[in-house]
Amino acid sequence: MKPLLNSPEPGPLLALAAHPDDLEFACGAVIARETRAGGAAHLVVCSRGEAGSHGTPRQRVAEARKAAALLGATLEFLEWDGDAHLEIRAAHAIQLAGIIRRVRPVVVLAPSCVENQHPDHYRLGQMARDAARLARYGGVKELRRQTVHAIGQLLFYAVTPEAEPRDLSPVLLDVSAPELVAVWTEAMQAHGSQTSARRYVELQLARARVWGLRAGVEHAVALFPNSPLVFESLAPASRGARGF
Amino acid sequence: MKPLLNSPEPGPLLALAAHPDDLEFACGAVIARETRAGGAAHLVVCSRGEAGSHGTPRQRVAEARKAAALLGATLEFLEWDGDAHLEIRAAHAIQLAGIIRRVRPVVVLAPSCVENQHPDHYRLGQMARDAARLARYGGVKELRRQTVHAIGQLLFYAVTPEAEPRDLSPVLLDVSAPELVAVWTEAMQAHGSQTSARRYVELQLARARVWGLRAGVEHAVALFPNSPLVFESLAPASRGARGF
Amino acid sequence: MKPLLNSPEPGPLLALAAHPDDLEFACGAVIARETRAGGAAHLVVCSRGEAGSHGTPRQRVAEARKAAALLGATLEFLEWDGDAHLEIRAAHAIQLAGIIRRVRPVVVLAPSCVENQHPDHYRLGQMARDAARLARYGGVKELRRQTVHAIGQLLFYAVTPEAEPRDLSPVLLDVSAPELVAVWTEAMQAHGSQTSARRYVELQLARARVWGLRAGVEHAVALFPNSPLVFESLAPASRGARGF
Amino acid sequence: MKPLLNSPEPGPLLALAAHPDDLEFACGAVIARETRAGGAAHLVVCSRGEAGSHGTPRQRVAEARKAAALLGATLEFLEWDGDAHLEIRAAHAIQLAGIIRRVRPVVVLAPSCVENQHPDHYRLGQMARDAARLARYGGVKELRRQTVHAIGQLLFYAVTPEAEPRDLSPVLLDVSAPELVAVWTEAMQAHGSQTSARRYVELQLARARVWGLRAGVEHAVALFPNSPLVFESLAPASRGARGF
Amino acid sequence: MKPLLNSPEPGPLLALAAHPDDLEFACGAVIARETRAGGAAHLVVCSRGEAGSHGTPRQRVAEARKAAALLGATLEFLEWDGDAHLEIRAAHAIQLAGIIRRVRPVVVLAPSCVENQHPDHYRLGQMARDAARLARYGGVKELRRQTVHAIGQLLFYAVTPEAEPRDLSPVLLDVSAPELVAVWTEAMQAHGSQTSARRYVELQLARARVWGLRAGVEHAVALFPNSPLVFESLAPASRGARGF
Amino acid sequence: MKPLLNSPEPGPLLALAAHPDDLEFACGAVIARETRAGGAAHLVVCSRGEAGSHGTPRQRVAEARKAAALLGATLEFLEWDGDAHLEIRAAHAIQLAGIIRRVRPVVVLAPSCVENQHPDHYRLGQMARDAARLARYGGVKELRRQTVHAIGQLLFYAVTPEAEPRDLSPVLLDVSAPELVAVWTEAMQAHGSQTSARRYVELQLARARVWGLRAGVEHAVALFPNSPLVFESLAPASRGARGF
Repeated sequence: MKPLLNSPEPGPLLALAAHPDDLEFACGAVIARETRAGGAAHLVVCSRGEAGSHGTPRQRVAEARKAAALLGATLEFLEWDGDAHLEIRAAHAIQLAGIIRRVRPVVVLAPSCVENQHPDHYRLGQMARDAARLARYGGVKELRRQTVHAIGQLLFYAVTPEAEPRDLSPVLLDVSAPELVAVWTEAMQAHGSQTSARRYVELQLARARVWGLRAGVEHAVALFPNSPLVFESLAPASRGARGF
Repeated sequence: MKPLLNSPEPGPLLALAAHPDDLEFACGAVIARETRAGGAAHLVVCSRGEAGSHGTPRQRVAEARKAAALLGATLEFLEWDGDAHLEIRAAHAIQLAGIIRRVRPVVVLAPSCVENQHPDHYRLGQMARDAARLARYGGVKELRRQTVHAIGQLLFYAVTPEAEPRDLSPVLLDVSAPELVAVWTEAMQAHGSQTSARRYVELQLARARVWGLRAGVEHAVALFPNSPLVFESLAPASRGARGF
Repeated sequence: MKPLLNSPEPGPLLALAAHPDDLEFACGAVIARETRAGGAAHLVVCSRGEAGSHGTPRQRVAEARKAAALLGATLEFLEWDGDAHLEIRAAHAIQLAGIIRRVRPVVVLAPSCVENQHPDHYRLGQMARDAARLARYGGVKELRRQTVHAIGQLLFYAVTPEAEPRDLSPVLLDVSAPELVAVWTEAMQAHGSQTSARRYVELQLARARVWGLRAGVEHAVALFPNSPLVFESLAPASRGARGF
Repeated sequence: MKPLLNSPEPGPLLALAAHPDDLEFACGAVIARETRAGGAAHLVVCSRGEAGSHGTPRQRVAEARKAAALLGATLEFLEWDGDAHLEIRAAHAIQLAGIIRRVRPVVVLAPSCVENQHPDHYRLGQMARDAARLARYGGVKELRRQTVHAIGQLLFYAVTPEAEPRDLSPVLLDVSAPELVAVWTEAMQAHGSQTSARRYVELQLARARVWGLRAGVEHAVALFPNSPLVFESLAPASRGARGF
Repeated sequence: MKPLLNSPEPGPLLALAAHPDDLEFACGAVIARETRAGGAAHLVVCSRGEAGSHGTPRQRVAEARKAAALLGATLEFLEWDGDAHLEIRAAHAIQLAGIIRRVRPVVVLAPSCVENQHPDHYRLGQMARDAARLARYGGVKELRRQTVHAIGQLLFYAVTPEAEPRDLSPVLLDVSAPELVAVWTEAMQAHGSQTSARRYVELQLARARVWGLRAGVEHAVALFPNSPLVFESLAPASRGARGF
Repeated sequence: MKPLLNSPEPGPLLALAAHPDDLEFACGAVIARETRAGGAAHLVVCSRGEAGSHGTPRQRVAEARKAAALLGATLEFLEWDGDAHLEIRAAHAIQLAGIIRRVRPVVVLAPSCVENQHPDHYRLGQMARDAARLARYGGVKELRRQTVHAIGQLLFYAVTPEAEPRDLSPVLLDVSAPELVAVWTEAMQAHGSQTSARRYVELQLARARVWGLRAGVEHAVALFPNSPLVFESLAPASRGARGF
């Protein structure tokens, strides 16, 4: 990832997921875009997907490792409440804040807070939003040994269309480069225990096609900024999705 | 204005207003930011402010010319329905589309479409949105002599806080540079017939201070993109307003 | 009506309607509340209801006169585009602004701007909102002989439940006094050409019962303030609808 | 179309469009579904598409006729303001109401009222909604020779994704039958002057795929009911889109 | 209940409630409609109403049993956190998912997730929504002995008007049949400890009257589908609430 | 505080805060307004601000005591989960309900429930809303020794602009009296450990200036009523914020 704006010490992109395959399906192309451009990315997964209908935890961890390697990212698992058991806890948010302080990202990716989706997703989204604040507060006792860190932006992703927030305007990431679509597809297919059972890959590529056609490109991924974007000039705001 | 993204032939910034002072109050600092950086800006005003409680049309036109000069922008008046008489007409939108084809801007600024504000404002906003589409359609008979033009983005401004849309996420333009605040203030004060009667300057600077403190800068102006922003990487999305 | 806050010269309550029976059905009890307390009320109706399925224009005017008398209000008809033919025109809004300058009300009642209702309703609502602004602008040429007037508040009413705005919080007027319900019912029944065909009276009383039970009273009518309420203390904000 | 609920005299499906190709792109599969099941469909188009960048009016009319034939529908053109010139007029809404009285449909299809789309689309949507009411009012003088008619439901379609309303819940029509997708594709391709220039067919099929995967079927089209659905039992509400 | 669409093995209607009287007040008529038509219904209540101002837990359980018998439904109590003590817990949601797997309903009724209502209501609503997903996931360890089950639709009910969601379109169930209103009223009155103190019955019948008048029938109950409705044709979407 | 409407036994204003300085920053002027008018106010703070970057718990408690004295309010600290550790717990809400029963306020102030703010804020807001209901329920076992109490209104405050709810209409409290602004400023500055590090005072005064200019006064504070306001006449609704 080339140096991001206004960041004296840009760390890797930090991407949070409730399950081993969420990031690959929702925004694997975006992660690949950043690593292909030379940036680092660190993935944090909060369960081993053990509640899914297909795949053992061991298999799913292996799939996630393979996918992370394809995306050029490092990977870390958290031992939390378990798949389908995630609860909102201050301790979780503080642990995430500690990871933010350690990784020191400019951008954090997390699932959206829309409640009508997998319950682990919106709970992680809400705790990620909390954590981005807690990472800045100097007096949090569990974190006192780590220097505070203010991220630049929290971007929500939507694993499925119904998880797209209606109260935040999307930004569209152009991921049309054929090598990005290829590595994204490969990273999704690395989760063979899932893709053999459901048509996830097809869903994601069709979504990226629809967003892409709106943006006037081949494929695009929508992300939803938690905070208003701050610009120095009109230039970065000058390209809108007006394909049709 | 330095060359904007994805535009083979970037023209000036095009800014549309219903009344002679709207642009200066709402986003004078943004216009100054672009012209100070070497870009061109063209202002189009659809009335002479003749329905206002203060100032004659002649005075107000003179004030607008002075303000435009301060902002480094060219200025054009339209002879439409008159201040406080603006109506939604296809002919108006088509005329605006013709101006877009002539000026060939990447970015267009227009008042927001929020209906609870001065009636001329939201009507112009709606017609500006329509015009941005019509400018692209090759068969509009009144415009056949002009080459079609697709703008990059339509950004809405809000002359007063209640005009800020609730269904579009704002982007914040950092206008903290002292010379920008100075020229903005001067351009607002150029409308002496208005500023002597109401505390418009104070309102706008207080708004810019509140947005600025949210963005972690001195002063900022909020604009509201009509279409989702399209980015090539995460970099332009990496700075969010998280001042508090 | 006892003197309203912050008004040096409180005029009558001004109530605007698209059709002869709209006010009685939507908020007859509110008008009666104010006139019973000694205030004046002036009703302005923009058509003779000639597009309705029942009742001739002559009948409907007579019904409206009878209802206005019951409510203790004066009544005025406008010759506009005709029932079911209302269009958004600057001239209409300016004429309404002239009425506001003449009547000098503190409070104006108008139909809501929700678009999924009778087309005349939301168009009048939108023009009433515009007119409340135009009445304050000194330079509107058609109105130069009338002193400008700033109303205190524009309150939207909803003739039917689907016209209740979702983006404005309601305020509930307690109209439980038996004499208010009686005169309201009588005023609705004055529109015999309508009430004989449809169960409008029943609808309105059931609505007032539901709102009333929420407010902890017998009957209440919901109105929707166009502008944030301004208070000198917490006292007027201290009673909320928490009946259940 | 098999007899719809609660309709003593069900007429054809009535579908309204601003341009010759809007219906085919937005919901051709839905129309085909009804005609394939034995129902009638009548299409009304309010311009000849003469403002488009591609195709002459003559060509576009021919394309529309071919597409209508493929869909098994009758077709009628209105001489209104012209493509890209549509204005909100009471006369237009009344004319649509007259068509409703003549055709006597249970269901009417019209473009959504979302304002950030082609200006002709949302204006027609708004006038269609008005017309559905006017068709019921017995006293509209221009329509006195036609018996009043109350439609069963107005369903909005979205020609492009940004036209999907955010304040109405969609209903999804399962159009997965291969013959439906085939005839829909053929009807879209009948508009060769458009499809040769832009990737409209691809956009619509990708959208239908995304909605379909959400619904657990191959392809689905989203429509947005203007009024709450009324059911006799829970059965018609018992199938929800929970594919992922 | 007659067989619902698309369900190879339709089980009973499953209705979830936080307190012994919630279901009867909110949607007793809907449950009666289904059982009168031959379907089965199973009610699950998560407390004994012990925090209420009136009635002992023993009384309230007896009232619930009487009401369930009147509605022709079976009844089950859960031993959870207690009335007014409900918390969001993964274990609760998983237990609900287990009930869904055991009962195998096509339709589930649950309180809405609107937060400004009794705290137990929205928490149960949120956990019901989560449970509907968890019931489909094969690897949830606590549920491994039960076959996964995908419900058809989750319908939210609103015990009071402020619990009606603003972001979901309602569907209206016609419950006008006199015997339905009668049994509904009787089932509400079975909760004598509550109805003697508050005018709940009157509130619910007035609400059903307002919804009914909108739908053009005598009485209707509004429910809010969690997922978009999926239809095979336009027929089930063809009746809208356009009474006024 | 002068006697509030409809309250036989008005107790003090009750104001709830997550941190020692939240109330002073968000609505110190409102509290001062009520105490200056002779009313009582009781502040309840749920942490000692120990997670903040500046100030020790001991210092912050001392600052809060000084500020409360300036505002003429009594002050109480709760020993809960600790700053940045607040969790939604039934026990917390019940404890708040107990405080409501003890203090017997007509009006309660609490932070808004908007989730994109400090996590302690919205959690307290949500539990305050729950508590206002629980205080009325006679059977809550932990509270049986206290008489039930129904508050008149719950008003949400927003510590920062992003915490202002978008789905509730604000009411504006005029706090322009110079002595109010003075004591408010003094109370904010009493939190010297915070104000020395961040420009909180400037933020709040600029916000109050923007709201004030909208309301046509010098300074105003926006509060957001949780329940619809109930009025006996139009008088309290007759002043709207229409400054611009």
